[in-house]
Amino acid sequence: MAQMDLWFTERQNENLSIGMRIKETLHSEVTEFQGMDVIDTFQYGKMLVLDGCVMTTDKDEFVYHEMLAHVPMHTHPNPKKVLVVGGGDGGIIREIVKHPSVEKAVLAEIDGRVIEISKQYFPHIASGLSDPRVDVQVADGIVHVQEHENEYDVILIDSTDPIGPAVGLFAKEFYASVHRALKDDGIFVAQTESPFKDPDLIRRVHEDVSSLFAQTHLYLAYIPTYPTGMWSFTMGSKRHNPLEAANELRVKDTRYYTPAIHKAAFALPRFVEEIFRR
Amino acid sequence: MAQMDLWFTERQNENLSIGMRIKETLHSEVTEFQGMDVIDTFQYGKMLVLDGCVMTTDKDEFVYHEMLAHVPMHTHPNPKKVLVVGGGDGGIIREIVKHPSVEKAVLAEIDGRVIEISKQYFPHIASGLSDPRVDVQVADGIVHVQEHENEYDVILIDSTDPIGPAVGLFAKEFYASVHRALKDDGIFVAQTESPFKDPDLIRRVHEDVSSLFAQTHLYLAYIPTYPTGMWSFTMGSKRHNPLEAANELRVKDTRYYTPAIHKAAFALPRFVEEIFRR
Repeated sequence: MAQMDLWFTERQNENLSIGMRIKETLHSEVTEFQGMDVIDTFQYGKMLVLDGCVMTTDKDEFVYHEMLAHVPMHTHPNPKKVLVVGGGDGGIIREIVKHPSVEKAVLAEIDGRVIEISKQYFPHIASGLSDPRVDVQVADGIVHVQEHENEYDVILIDSTDPIGPAVGLFAKEFYASVHRALKDDGIFVAQTESPFKDPDLIRRVHEDVSSLFAQTHLYLAYIPTYPTGMWSFTMGSKRHNPLEAANELRVKDTRYYTPAIHKAAFALPRFVEEIFRR
Repeated sequence: MAQMDLWFTERQNENLSIGMRIKETLHSEVTEFQGMDVIDTFQYGKMLVLDGCVMTTDKDEFVYHEMLAHVPMHTHPNPKKVLVVGGGDGGIIREIVKHPSVEKAVLAEIDGRVIEISKQYFPHIASGLSDPRVDVQVADGIVHVQEHENEYDVILIDSTDPIGPAVGLFAKEFYASVHRALKDDGIFVAQTESPFKDPDLIRRVHEDVSSLFAQTHLYLAYIPTYPTGMWSFTMGSKRHNPLEAANELRVKDTRYYTPAIHKAAFALPRFVEEIFRR
């Protein structure tokens, strides 16, 4: 006897796919904003899928969450107030609240169902959401950023791909609002897709951020379940230089981030450097 | 009218696959040693497939070839004589002969058909094979290494996965032969699969190499068409330390390798460091 061979396939674009053999589908719904599925895979454990795209998995979620959170959090000398736009699974918040300096962390997630499903199926990822310093708001992050000025030390944009509900999170006017919402030594980081697959997006974001912030830096991390496995993050900083920071680890229990990785992540392969030079 | 939607799927293990939409199959044969196909893909251009596994592609071959070759070639102060075991496509040789110090480069590839097919379908990869300093031998690299002693400055192991014809290239006795074939300040590097997928292999190779060489170092590169996108290389060095080398670029025309990437590639995520500590 044998059970059927069941595979989830993500079409990463029209020419590229990744497939994982799955044990079962644990949850499936269409929320107000997007399709949302939870599957149990043999290779990567449980996996959250939004609009057909892998968002996070048990086995490799630590890379994305640590690298989006800890690089800016170690660049700022004393981050007290932090905003996460998107990130309803809670993984970024979990890393943020590891920092003793943090007094308040706001999560602005537009789709409340993501938060609820993460608490149910990914409690180890959602764990930080119950920290008393955390203010979870089911709200449009774009509006939240517009309504706050000179308030945050660090803002993190944990968005889906630049289609559907997240498209406004890749717009220059949004980055301008982020700039206003930051204090005068504030830092923001956004996930900005793959240099192998999305160089045009990275170039445009880099130009937009450079026109607003004193410093713009790109850094990289290895994420197996995201297209091409090479993922980029764009940082805009008003004052602090990430290459002069992070000489010691401020948090425990990292599995990817170290002070050496902090610096190494900014060393770009030549073809990635050239994305900005064209 | 529309043509059929044709996909190549590599089962990277029993639970994981990668798919590429293809234009056509250009070549297909079973050699004395392995299945060999050449396909034309929309995402990555032409692709060489051995025993069903992606070996090299037009679009991302530069990463693997530059990082396997230039890291040891910049670690050795004056590499004159170099051996490549495997690597019949010629990509490693192409990078080796960019170094002005090189007087002789030997290629020992067991499957002559790989060399011929690469010259036909990947002339930009095979280009270095016609350099007058290159000695192309259709031969078993294991035997070649056994028959040479105190001869090479740098030996590079450009193997397929540790199954089929390449299994002997991951054995401790082979590394001992490599050690003997190197001069007393020689360096070797082998491709050693993915830390996300093959930690046990990496640990075993690291232990075996450490028992033979004064220094053992692991470094990483982003390769989208290899499983998980994170690829590792294990270096055994008799004297020279790669972290104290490579302060300037000795070759032109790299697309991935830079002196900063050289150093950054040795900064390991914590979970990769821990592969050796267990």
